[in-house]
Amino acid sequence: MNIRLYNARILTMEEGKNVFFGEIRIKDEKIIYVGEEISDDASDIKWDQEIDCKGNLLMPGFKDAHTHSGMTLLRSYADDLPLSDWLNTQVFPVEAKMNAEDIYHLTQLAILEYLTSGITSIFDMYLTPESIADACDDMGMRCVQVGAVNNFSQSPELVEEMYLKLNNKSPLQSYILGFHAEYTCSKELLMKIAELSHKYQAPVFTHLAETESEAEGCRERYGMTPMAFLDSLGMFDYGGGGYHCVHMTQEDIHIMKEKGLYAISNPASNAKLASGIAPISDYLKAGVPVALGTDGPASNNCLDMFREMFLVTGLAKLREKDASAVDAMEVLKMATVNGAHAMGLHDADVLAEGKLADIIMIDLNQPNMQPINHIAKNVVYSGSKQNVKMTMIHGEILYMDGVFYTKIQPAEIYRKANEIIDKHR
Amino acid sequence: MNIRLYNARILTMEEGKNVFFGEIRIKDEKIIYVGEEISDDASDIKWDQEIDCKGNLLMPGFKDAHTHSGMTLLRSYADDLPLSDWLNTQVFPVEAKMNAEDIYHLTQLAILEYLTSGITSIFDMYLTPESIADACDDMGMRCVQVGAVNNFSQSPELVEEMYLKLNNKSPLQSYILGFHAEYTCSKELLMKIAELSHKYQAPVFTHLAETESEAEGCRERYGMTPMAFLDSLGMFDYGGGGYHCVHMTQEDIHIMKEKGLYAISNPASNAKLASGIAPISDYLKAGVPVALGTDGPASNNCLDMFREMFLVTGLAKLREKDASAVDAMEVLKMATVNGAHAMGLHDADVLAEGKLADIIMIDLNQPNMQPINHIAKNVVYSGSKQNVKMTMIHGEILYMDGVFYTKIQPAEIYRKANEIIDKHR
Repeated sequence: MNIRLYNARILTMEEGKNVFFGEIRIKDEKIIYVGEEISDDASDIKWDQEIDCKGNLLMPGFKDAHTHSGMTLLRSYADDLPLSDWLNTQVFPVEAKMNAEDIYHLTQLAILEYLTSGITSIFDMYLTPESIADACDDMGMRCVQVGAVNNFSQSPELVEEMYLKLNNKSPLQSYILGFHAEYTCSKELLMKIAELSHKYQAPVFTHLAETESEAEGCRERYGMTPMAFLDSLGMFDYGGGGYHCVHMTQEDIHIMKEKGLYAISNPASNAKLASGIAPISDYLKAGVPVALGTDGPASNNCLDMFREMFLVTGLAKLREKDASAVDAMEVLKMATVNGAHAMGLHDADVLAEGKLADIIMIDLNQPNMQPINHIAKNVVYSGSKQNVKMTMIHGEILYMDGVFYTKIQPAEIYRKANEIIDKHR
Repeated sequence: MNIRLYNARILTMEEGKNVFFGEIRIKDEKIIYVGEEISDDASDIKWDQEIDCKGNLLMPGFKDAHTHSGMTLLRSYADDLPLSDWLNTQVFPVEAKMNAEDIYHLTQLAILEYLTSGITSIFDMYLTPESIADACDDMGMRCVQVGAVNNFSQSPELVEEMYLKLNNKSPLQSYILGFHAEYTCSKELLMKIAELSHKYQAPVFTHLAETESEAEGCRERYGMTPMAFLDSLGMFDYGGGGYHCVHMTQEDIHIMKEKGLYAISNPASNAKLASGIAPISDYLKAGVPVALGTDGPASNNCLDMFREMFLVTGLAKLREKDASAVDAMEVLKMATVNGAHAMGLHDADVLAEGKLADIIMIDLNQPNMQPINHIAKNVVYSGSKQNVKMTMIHGEILYMDGVFYTKIQPAEIYRKANEIIDKHR
C-alpha cells in the first residue's frame, strides 16, 4: 500500500527537531518522504490512500519496552496484593493451566489495547514464544520477544532455539536473549544464559531490582546487588538491560553506564504493586538511557503508554521533591526512540526517509490538547488513549477513529478471552 | 426529555450493591426507575429516546471535587516548576490580564474535557464566579463554585453576594463559602470568612496543607498547623473541608474527623508539582471521607478522573509500601458519592429513583475492559477517557460516542481559547 498523510503537524523525534507542518509518504512498509508538503507531485506513485490529517500530529508509535501480553487473562483477577503473594498464590497457579493456544488469543486481546494506545511495538516476555509470535503476525503487531527462562519453565536450549527461529520468522518478529529474574533462576542457569550471550555476542534483558526484597535476597545469596552479581557472571558483556530497575545503588548505575545498558521503567506497575519509585533522575544524570513499559496487564492493569509517560515524570518529581525533574521531551524520547533502541529496532525509532512506517496520529482537536501552547507537553502531561486517532505498523493502518482493521476482530477476541477465563477459574 | 437506557450493566454505587443487568428510566432531569428490565411497560410514558446500552456499564457520573476550570489557558504554558515559582512567575501574571469573558470561554474548554472523562459536576474555584456560572449554564454543566477570596482578589463581600446569588441562579449552579488558602489570606480576612460561615451556618472549603512550605509557614506565623489554626478561628464549625490535604498531622486528621470535614485529594497535581503524597490510608482509617479532584489543567495538566483514580490508590500503595492499600471500590466511592456529598449534591450521588440523572456509560466492549473479571476494578485500574461512551447531566445527553451535543460546539471553543492565549502571551 502507498499512503500519503498530508496537512499534518509532524514530530519526527529526531534530536533537536521541532514540530512542523508537512506530510509523510509511505511506500509499502517504509517511509519514503517526511517534510514540507509538496504541491507539485513529480513522483509517479499511485496513492492507495491520501489522508487529510487536519492539522493533527504525526509522531513515531510508542514502544512498550516491557510487557507480558498474555496476562490479559488476569486483569482485575487479583489486585491489591504484594508482589510475592500475587505471583505465588494468584498468578502462577492460573498460568500453570494456560496452554499455547490460550496465550495466542490472550496476546491478541492485548494487541487490540496496544493499538488504542498508539503502541507500535512491544518487548514481550511470556510463556509460549511461538504462539505469541503467531498471534502478533496474525494481528500485524511488531513484537520483540525476550527469553523468559527460570527454574520452573523454559530452558536455555529453548531460548537458543527461539533466538535462531524467531529472528528469522517474519519482518515483524524478533527475539532477544533473556531470563525471568535473578531470584527465579539458579546460578547454573544464569551462567548458561551468559554463555549464550557470549556465543552470539548478543544483549540480555531481565527483570532487575524490581523490589527491595529481591535486592536484599540477592545480597544474602551472593553478597552482591542483583546488578553486580549478574555482571560478575559476564551477563551484560554484550549489552542489554533491566526491567523495573527500582532498587539500584549508585554503583549499579555506574555498571549500567559502563556496559551500555538500558533501564526500562514500569512506573504504573511499580506503584500498583508498591514496589517503589525508580531513580530516573539518577539514570539521566549518569547517561543511562531510560525506556518505558507497561508491564503486564495483571499488574498495571492496563496497557497505556500515556499513563506510563505521566507517571515516569510525576513519580520522579515526587522522589526528587523537584517539579523540574524529568521534562516532557525526555519522556517522549523514552517512550519512542529509547524503547526502539533497547529493543534493537533501529529502523523504527524516528520518522525519517528509509525508516519503517510505524506511525501514530494524535488528535489535537480534542479539549485536552487545547490550546496549543506546547504540543509535546500536551501529549505527555494531558494526552490519553482518547487522543489516538490512528495507529500504523509496518505501513498498515490497524486502528483508526476507534475502528480496528486487524484480520481478527475484537468481538471474536473478547469472546475467546472470556471463554478462557471461565475455563480456568 | 424522557429517556430509557436498557440492556445495561448498572452500578448504582449504593452501599453494598453489586453490578446487575437492567435498565434506567429518566423523566426530565430525574431518574424514575433503576432495576431489572421491565418487559411489559405499563407506564404511559412516551420515550423520546430508547438507548440499547449493549451490556455496557451505567454508573453515576464522576464528581471532580477540586478544579480551576479557567486555567485551561495555561495548560502546558509553564511546566516543570515548583509550586511557588509556577504561581508567582507564570500563573499570576497571566491571570492578572484575564477578564470575565476570557474565563467564560476558557471554562467552556474545560467543560468539553470534563464530558470526555465522564465528569458530571465540578467543584470550581476561580476568579469570576458569574461568568463561570454562565459558562456552565450555557454548556449544561453542573457546577458548585467555591469562594476564592485572598489578599489580592475577591472580597468577603463578594463571597457573600455570590453565595446568595449563585445558589438561586439555576438548577445547575450552586455556591459554597471558601477562600484561596491560609498563606494567601490575612488573619482578618480569614476571620471574616469564618463569620460568614457562622452567619449562614454553612461549610467552608479551602486549599489546605498542599505543600510542606505552606504547613511550615503557618507554624511560623501562628504556631499552629494550617488545619489547627483555621479551626481555632471557628472556620469549620459548620463543616467543609480542604483541597489537597497532603501535609497533615494525626492531630489535624483528628480535627477533620471531629468536624466532619472532607479531604479532597488531587494526586496528579501533587505529583506534577512535587508537593507530596497525601496520607489517604490515614484518612480512611480515621473515618474522614476522601473525595477526588483534578485540580486545574495548568497543574495536572488534564481533567481526567481516571488518572486521579489510578493515582490515589497507586500513590497510597507506594506511601504505605502496601499493595493492598486503598482498594478499588473505595476509590470509586471517592470519585462519585463522596465528591457529591462534599459538594452538597445529595441528589446526585447514586443511581436511584428520585435522584438527578447525572449518569455515564462506560464502554466495556473495549480491550482494556476485557475479560470481565471485575468491572469496578477494571474501571479504576484500567479505565480511561476512551471508555466514556456517554455523559448525561441533569437528564441531558451532552456527549456520546465522541460527539458533543453542547449548545456551543468545540471548534468555536478551541478557536476562542487560542485567540485568548495569543492575546495574553
